[in-house]
Amino acid sequence: MADHWIYGFHPVAQRLPQIGSGVLLIRSGKVTGRVETLIALAHSKQIAVERVSLEAFDQRLGAVVEHQGLALLTSEAVIQIVETLDAFLAPKEIPRTLLVLDGVTDPGNLGACLRSALTFGVDAVVVPKHGSAPLNAIVMKRSAGAAAEIPVVEVTNLSRSLRQMKSAGYWVVGTALGSDVSLAEFDLRTDIVLVMGSEGEGLRLNTRKQCDCLVEIPMHRDAFNLNVSVATGICLYELCRQRST
Amino acid sequence: MADHWIYGFHPVAQRLPQIGSGVLLIRSGKVTGRVETLIALAHSKQIAVERVSLEAFDQRLGAVVEHQGLALLTSEAVIQIVETLDAFLAPKEIPRTLLVLDGVTDPGNLGACLRSALTFGVDAVVVPKHGSAPLNAIVMKRSAGAAAEIPVVEVTNLSRSLRQMKSAGYWVVGTALGSDVSLAEFDLRTDIVLVMGSEGEGLRLNTRKQCDCLVEIPMHRDAFNLNVSVATGICLYELCRQRST
Repeated sequence: MADHWIYGFHPVAQRLPQIGSGVLLIRSGKVTGRVETLIALAHSKQIAVERVSLEAFDQRLGAVVEHQGLALLTSEAVIQIVETLDAFLAPKEIPRTLLVLDGVTDPGNLGACLRSALTFGVDAVVVPKHGSAPLNAIVMKRSAGAAAEIPVVEVTNLSRSLRQMKSAGYWVVGTALGSDVSLAEFDLRTDIVLVMGSEGEGLRLNTRKQCDCLVEIPMHRDAFNLNVSVATGICLYELCRQRST
Repeated sequence: MADHWIYGFHPVAQRLPQIGSGVLLIRSGKVTGRVETLIALAHSKQIAVERVSLEAFDQRLGAVVEHQGLALLTSEAVIQIVETLDAFLAPKEIPRTLLVLDGVTDPGNLGACLRSALTFGVDAVVVPKHGSAPLNAIVMKRSAGAAAEIPVVEVTNLSRSLRQMKSAGYWVVGTALGSDVSLAEFDLRTDIVLVMGSEGEGLRLNTRKQCDCLVEIPMHRDAFNLNVSVATGICLYELCRQRST
């Protein structure tokens, strides 16, 4: 299995307790207390710790930035991908939430969406196997480690999966500019599949067809729109707001 | 005055109509209709158009990514900085909104905040002169061009500026984890200064002292939090939601 880099404090802190083997890379020089804690944890797990210069660091991680002088090299998968939706189709006591990202191709945006999904208690994030950002170290970094915790389901046929979700009792709510229904007006206190489109194109036609309802985030400026990770955060916030009142 | 790069379709399309001189760089090869429109505009303004190879492109823009084969080089300032708050202290017919970013140091996050601010009709964004991300081409790119439209006020003493805003009738609302008041519970239908802290540290103590109220975005997971640009988008959405009902 290929080696993966995980970099930045939060992603490393998140992943280190879960892995059995790897190398922890620390930039040489004075370290903070929280980094010392990670070093101690690595030692206790017999994971090798290497202190290297900043130059060596940049060299080994390539073009990767924002490593904060901290990286983890492991052959264990960075992001565990769930192969089937089954676990999320069963009924639950509390309202269920799935987040479908229909073609988010920027790893930074995907990571930010995973972070918000975990923060707002989403059960799983569903992405199409083709036409999505690769689930790599950039996703992990920009998710602040959330990508290691939130289940990510890869599906081959999104339309079919959306039909499965509807059969399992979910309402499929797509977001689209120019919809008649405002996000806040739609009752989100039931089992909800929230479907976000890609940044440039929005929802694909086949995806849009499967939606029970299309909602819009009300905005002041028609000429402008929101970053997809910001729009996702807003929809998940609204969902939590409605459910808590 | 130094030359600035603006890159990516939206930022270039936003800025090109406003400038009087510069060079438009296009990657050689077939171009889309929307890029042809930009070339025609450049010609009509007697702005030079250069067609260069992808390699030459990467070389001239340095480490900059996401240029989409399109860049603009101009000596006219990328982001017009407003030097004084005065214009935003005068009364208005409709509720006023200022967004204060207290030490957002990541240019990508700052850009995303500016984009949301413009989309949700914020009057101006206020940043401290020291300890903020530089207002550069990355900010412009990640703002999708919004940085050229929304007024950005740089202030030297944020505490003093916040006192000025309060004297001018604004409510100063800070966001902080662990606050007693939930965002949705606070009445945002008046003149509001929304204060967001830095990603790592939150609000600085001096800033927090100037807040009339601290509110929290309700979340499921205490261990996790939101990206600052996502949190900003959520607060601005809630403000619009309350004002539209």
